[in-house]
Amino acid sequence: METVEKGQPFPCIEASSASLRTSNPIREVVDRIDTSQMNKSKPMIPLSIGDPTVFGNLNACEETIQAVVEVTKSCQANGYPKAVGMIEARTAIAKEFTVPNCSLTPADVILTSGCSHALQLCLEVLLEPGKNILIPNPGFPLYKTICDYIGAETRGYKLSPERGWQIDLKHLRALIDSNTRAILINNPSNPCGAVYPKSHLCEILKVAEEAKLPIIADEIYHQIVFPGNESIPIASLTNVVPVLSVGGLAKRFLVPGWRLGWIIVYDHHNVFSQVREGLERLSTLIMGANSLIQAALPKIIQNVPTSWHLSVLRNLHMQANYSYERLSHMNGLEPVMPQGSMYIMVGIQIEKSRDIKNDIDFCQKLLNEESVFVLPGQCFGASNYFRIVFCAPMDKLAEVGVLQDVMKLYLLIGYLRLFFQAYNRMSDFCRRHMRS
Amino acid sequence: METVEKGQPFPCIEASSASLRTSNPIREVVDRIDTSQMNKSKPMIPLSIGDPTVFGNLNACEETIQAVVEVTKSCQANGYPKAVGMIEARTAIAKEFTVPNCSLTPADVILTSGCSHALQLCLEVLLEPGKNILIPNPGFPLYKTICDYIGAETRGYKLSPERGWQIDLKHLRALIDSNTRAILINNPSNPCGAVYPKSHLCEILKVAEEAKLPIIADEIYHQIVFPGNESIPIASLTNVVPVLSVGGLAKRFLVPGWRLGWIIVYDHHNVFSQVREGLERLSTLIMGANSLIQAALPKIIQNVPTSWHLSVLRNLHMQANYSYERLSHMNGLEPVMPQGSMYIMVGIQIEKSRDIKNDIDFCQKLLNEESVFVLPGQCFGASNYFRIVFCAPMDKLAEVGVLQDVMKLYLLIGYLRLFFQAYNRMSDFCRRHMRS
Ligand SMILES: Cc1ncc(COP(=O)(O)O)c(C=O)c1O
Ligand SMILES: Cc1ncc(COP(=O)(O)O)c(C=O)c1O
Repeated sequence: METVEKGQPFPCIEASSASLRTSNPIREVVDRIDTSQMNKSKPMIPLSIGDPTVFGNLNACEETIQAVVEVTKSCQANGYPKAVGMIEARTAIAKEFTVPNCSLTPADVILTSGCSHALQLCLEVLLEPGKNILIPNPGFPLYKTICDYIGAETRGYKLSPERGWQIDLKHLRALIDSNTRAILINNPSNPCGAVYPKSHLCEILKVAEEAKLPIIADEIYHQIVFPGNESIPIASLTNVVPVLSVGGLAKRFLVPGWRLGWIIVYDHHNVFSQVREGLERLSTLIMGANSLIQAALPKIIQNVPTSWHLSVLRNLHMQANYSYERLSHMNGLEPVMPQGSMYIMVGIQIEKSRDIKNDIDFCQKLLNEESVFVLPGQCFGASNYFRIVFCAPMDKLAEVGVLQDVMKLYLLIGYLRLFFQAYNRMSDFCRRHMRS
Repeated sequence: METVEKGQPFPCIEASSASLRTSNPIREVVDRIDTSQMNKSKPMIPLSIGDPTVFGNLNACEETIQAVVEVTKSCQANGYPKAVGMIEARTAIAKEFTVPNCSLTPADVILTSGCSHALQLCLEVLLEPGKNILIPNPGFPLYKTICDYIGAETRGYKLSPERGWQIDLKHLRALIDSNTRAILINNPSNPCGAVYPKSHLCEILKVAEEAKLPIIADEIYHQIVFPGNESIPIASLTNVVPVLSVGGLAKRFLVPGWRLGWIIVYDHHNVFSQVREGLERLSTLIMGANSLIQAALPKIIQNVPTSWHLSVLRNLHMQANYSYERLSHMNGLEPVMPQGSMYIMVGIQIEKSRDIKNDIDFCQKLLNEESVFVLPGQCFGASNYFRIVFCAPMDKLAEVGVLQDVMKLYLLIGYLRLFFQAYNRMSDFCRRHMRS
């Protein structure tokens, strides 16, 4: 091996401040949790990651898989899509998300590399250093991560657990100043599992209208709501307030790794023309989502049967009920019953604890003693809560009839036992550490 | 439909300056070209887009398709990959791109949503407003697009067409100042089709070492080089200069729409630790590439036979030769023979023109009169050149024996005729507009 130089020392290369201030609160909190002390005699049960596929039991629909297999085999969709996405896919989204008061065309849709990328573009187009945005607290940590990166300020508005995590509107109003550029809402929500009724969404719109602020609506859990709740796109309730709604295939179709998201521009009075221009420019930077998934999208939306969606929902709802039921009977815990999504927030009554300092301490000790991993509320800006992801299986057993092989059944029972076990272990844990 | 408000006017929402300054030079130049005057009696022949699949004849390898079909059917790769990418895929890249003087581990690889996203992360981690980077001129326009977005300055170093588009090292050196953060090189290159010999790469490394600047090496056309040229990763020639090499599946595997790219960190003396940290942080923003392609990647790299790569290369080389040959005999044109990639740059001797003002005018008139679409050099910072993409088919006819059906053959002959025709039309055009 020849080389040109002799190997003189090279200085350390500095990273930009934007990159170094890009911080993921989950990572920061989780990094402080020490997994080395985990109880190795008990198998680990992760109830921490918002990935519906993590248990290997909640699978994408056959039709979803088939659509991608066909497109891939056809070899007709390997080329560059337009930066804003393929017209057929955008047409399908426009049709699916048109609301009575705002009819959409493909020009109102931009496809992105996951909903995360959709959020990044929306925040980048509306914010700059010196400006601020109102975000939910507790809330999905990526909002702050992206704003940190941009160098814009986030102001967390309070949610009230006792009123189904509805927004404290007084607090919301009080946070607005002349540098506020938008209100971000997340409905149905992560980590709270809240689903807002129409009346509450109208109240939020009123604040936005008075302050003349656009809304970014993170609606990635659209339609993942339990009986008695309605999934209402906020844009369907206004003729005035401009809305950027973001979503994606990840949760509703159980394919988070496929990274297909979208931005829908609901613009009743043409006040978003500069924003559209900015979004289109930003979309040219990385050229969006995988072409195979884009090409399969119209078929996925059309072919996945309602019955499949309903069965996933039934599954999630049972898990939610079971989780709530078990948690309500544990010493020192106060679960808040979710109305949708795949998360439940559980309050920790620290005053009842024997030796637990806070939510991080709770999660650390639970991991050490019981090998059950849940995320501390501090990841979401909520001290003395923890979040459980409840997409492990439940009613799958009812489908035993269609199971093709014993192996599958065996696996399912295994998962199910893990899920029961997780709550048994948590219950033991609370009996030891919390007073009743 | 009920709504909360009466429809009071809402002010126009401003887009951020970062979004509005994100400009794509190709789009800006192409937007100025008027397609409405196109000669409708002649079918359009687009030789403008750097997409090898655009003619529908250069197809991905069967093994590539098969790998993705298998992964998709398995339903085992629908979940979130790690933000930096799946370990198996990163291991495969680390193995493939290890060089004798710098052995790689998966920790040195970050997977991204296309090479564009890889470039965005590398530029974001090294640059900030007030800093500058040296980029090739003529060069791939995305470099400037991303830097405009960041708010950092680009300084174009001259390439010399008479010396196979090698870098004018004196000019390169003269551009460096205390705010320069990196040198970006593109080898093999778009739009020039240049492939640098070892000696030239060593000269570039010497400049970088003297100035203590890291190199971003855009090596997405790695191995797409014609006989007599060698594809050398610049990192293989240094023991000192830290290199971020970016690449992807797009060109070599003919799947640009799949959006799988990577960053490889070649860091001989641990001077990139902060940069790694920054890259990892930035990768959490959008979570990278599609999981199906990530999971298929090890198989794609392993299973695609060398014979397939060689046949694609043969094809490209014949197209390059044919293009060069034809263009050399046209009035007022000076093609520069490419050494690799899929592009040829053609000089326009404006002094010989009868009525053509510049490259944009040339491309506009060629489109109007002959319905042949090529990109003006100004898209790449090179006035009085134009760029032809030569991935239309040629030697495919030699494969007639393996063609399954007449339709395919018919299509191939059609494509081939188009490609011949494009040059016939260009030749007529030059006879009219340029003096010999
Ligand atoms: C509220 C919310 N928004 C956005 C996302 C990101 O979605 P994607 O995986 O499509 O980037 C998530 C993922 O968990 C989420 O919970
Ligand atoms: C030199 C160069 N770098 C990077 C890219 C972007 O590659 P990708 O399509 O993987 O984003 C291209 C695409 O044409 C290119 O020509």
